[in-house]
Amino acid sequence: MSLSPTLALACELIRRPSVTPVDADCQQLMMQRLAACGFDLEPMRIEEVDNFWARRAGRDGGAGPVLCFAGHTDVVPTGPEQAWQHLPFDALIDANGMLCGRGAADMKGSLAAMIIATERFVAEHPDHRGSIAYLITSDEEGPAQHGTKAVVERLRARNERLDWCIVGEPSSTTLVGDVVKNGRRGSLGAVLRVRGVQGHVAYPHLAKNPIHLAAPALAELAAEHWDDGNAFFPPTSFQISNINGGTGATNVIPGELVVVFNFRFSTESTPEGLQQRVAAILDKHGLDWHVDWALSGLPFLTEPGELLDAVAASIQAVTGRKTQPSTSGGTSDGRFIATLGTQVVELGPVNATIHQVNERVLASDLDLLSEIYYQTLVRLLA
Amino acid sequence: MSLSPTLALACELIRRPSVTPVDADCQQLMMQRLAACGFDLEPMRIEEVDNFWARRAGRDGGAGPVLCFAGHTDVVPTGPEQAWQHLPFDALIDANGMLCGRGAADMKGSLAAMIIATERFVAEHPDHRGSIAYLITSDEEGPAQHGTKAVVERLRARNERLDWCIVGEPSSTTLVGDVVKNGRRGSLGAVLRVRGVQGHVAYPHLAKNPIHLAAPALAELAAEHWDDGNAFFPPTSFQISNINGGTGATNVIPGELVVVFNFRFSTESTPEGLQQRVAAILDKHGLDWHVDWALSGLPFLTEPGELLDAVAASIQAVTGRKTQPSTSGGTSDGRFIATLGTQVVELGPVNATIHQVNERVLASDLDLLSEIYYQTLVRLLA
Repeated sequence: MSLSPTLALACELIRRPSVTPVDADCQQLMMQRLAACGFDLEPMRIEEVDNFWARRAGRDGGAGPVLCFAGHTDVVPTGPEQAWQHLPFDALIDANGMLCGRGAADMKGSLAAMIIATERFVAEHPDHRGSIAYLITSDEEGPAQHGTKAVVERLRARNERLDWCIVGEPSSTTLVGDVVKNGRRGSLGAVLRVRGVQGHVAYPHLAKNPIHLAAPALAELAAEHWDDGNAFFPPTSFQISNINGGTGATNVIPGELVVVFNFRFSTESTPEGLQQRVAAILDKHGLDWHVDWALSGLPFLTEPGELLDAVAASIQAVTGRKTQPSTSGGTSDGRFIATLGTQVVELGPVNATIHQVNERVLASDLDLLSEIYYQTLVRLLA
Repeated sequence: MSLSPTLALACELIRRPSVTPVDADCQQLMMQRLAACGFDLEPMRIEEVDNFWARRAGRDGGAGPVLCFAGHTDVVPTGPEQAWQHLPFDALIDANGMLCGRGAADMKGSLAAMIIATERFVAEHPDHRGSIAYLITSDEEGPAQHGTKAVVERLRARNERLDWCIVGEPSSTTLVGDVVKNGRRGSLGAVLRVRGVQGHVAYPHLAKNPIHLAAPALAELAAEHWDDGNAFFPPTSFQISNINGGTGATNVIPGELVVVFNFRFSTESTPEGLQQRVAAILDKHGLDWHVDWALSGLPFLTEPGELLDAVAASIQAVTGRKTQPSTSGGTSDGRFIATLGTQVVELGPVNATIHQVNERVLASDLDLLSEIYYQTLVRLLA
């Protein structure tokens, strides 16, 4: 069986074991292919992270809109290799037609589909309008400080134009294209410390138990309705991820309780507003408290418009499906790109096995995905 | 300066470094002194723990009431010796008249005071009524399984009579004799596990956060009024000593919350009743929960009567003070002895420095304490 161009390239990428932040020459391979169809390449190694920016100007010599494909070559660790049915970096298509290997779904399959779509589009439309660009990093799964975020800062500094961006993150839930992400909630983390007075369990009147004092406040925070969300975002959610208090001894009332929590927030709430409301609840319960806040991402939203319309129409044409825009799920590098004023949509294969052992994706889905990317290029830049 | 007999013996005992469960021949020394005044000795080494039971029958040949002195020769560890002003096993009286050393207050000072009181009483009243007894262990500060508890079981098995017991625990708070303990609350421990469903913070609808679910139940448990106590006991208290939930990761909703709590309960509540009320609150909040209970001691109470009257009168005669009976504080070996139907009172020196570095007690207080013990012997057995 001879593989399609997309599957052949996906296998080549998967066989390069690029666990974050190692790129293992995946970007080299991508850049060779892009150079061959006329892209200007700009490798940007920042600290230990390989990134590149590439751009191909069309008939208007760099004027006109820019459509950028964005993604990452790094993959998460394999976990125990013996737990895999096929070795994670072997890249093969199994009897069920699944392309198996680490990165098949997140997101080397998407990278291959983008490259093949781009090669085909450029071959058929060498004098396209506007520009095609690539923003690729090898640190999306890691700290993500020297990856897309840093590249975006360089692009911003030189006023690089970036109208539309398709991020290859695996957005689909059951069938390729059934869901695209047209935004992401913001993420606001916090470490709350509630102070009491340590003492002996037998002498509670000499102590102040921070667990007892905090319990009603935590109950109120957990029950609080933060906002209603809106047409694009589910309501803001609050979750306590960690709670720790106590010396280990069963006869000691602890002097402090530590609670780690996180907001995933819609565009109906702001970090400042959430912080004020948390403070008000803690104060209402008379707690002696301190919170260290960490804003890991503001929410972003791409409302219906040229990009979302083109993507939806391409999905419909290729799969017959009406796609569902969604802002659910975790954060992605899209939040950095969106700060440039760019319309950002995430579109990639089914995400059911990402980060797991036996990561895999229906091989034929990657060919469909490449076709969707191709048609989107045609709709926006032909 | 020549030391009083009580202080001389206290120093001899302190100089034997008997950290639990080591006795370091403290009991040998005590038994020699008791044998010399006519006690029948019964050493009871149980597993790695030295204990002894001793009894002196008076004029009625073993009939009549039995007054037992109870206590322990073991001491808690010293902690860092360099933190001590005087070495912990040197036993000296400092410029402020304080006897310094590990065990000075808890409770070698009391042991010396008992022996000296007994020697004097026997010399003056060789034909006393009833019997004097001693129940001494070297494992009160440790697991306390093979100490007083085990000796009491042997005494129970042979129907040994034990009417009154004075435990030498440091009961006093400011001045010797200001407080005696005429009972102790019960102690009921528990490890509560609340189960949820682990998941990603970004997908809370797929998880069940046990911290959120448990918070209102914990708030209700902390606010619950368990009983009013009574004339002898403060109200039952509930304290959470430890709470732990979370994987350490800030983006994971944990699957379980573990809460360690403890009741100190009065005779107005029973372990079974408290367990049922906790279960009702957890059920009311719809939790998926499991509790492992550990009953470490039932409450006991010695109501006003012969023993408490004799002790109070002796304190009044020696110090001019009206003593305050109290059931506050932690558990003691008195809880085991009380199960024999014995009236139990704890009477010892000031407890301000017990278990700390620079443990010390006003030297002259030990002479007063010996005088109180002596007068109690006179009142009950002369």
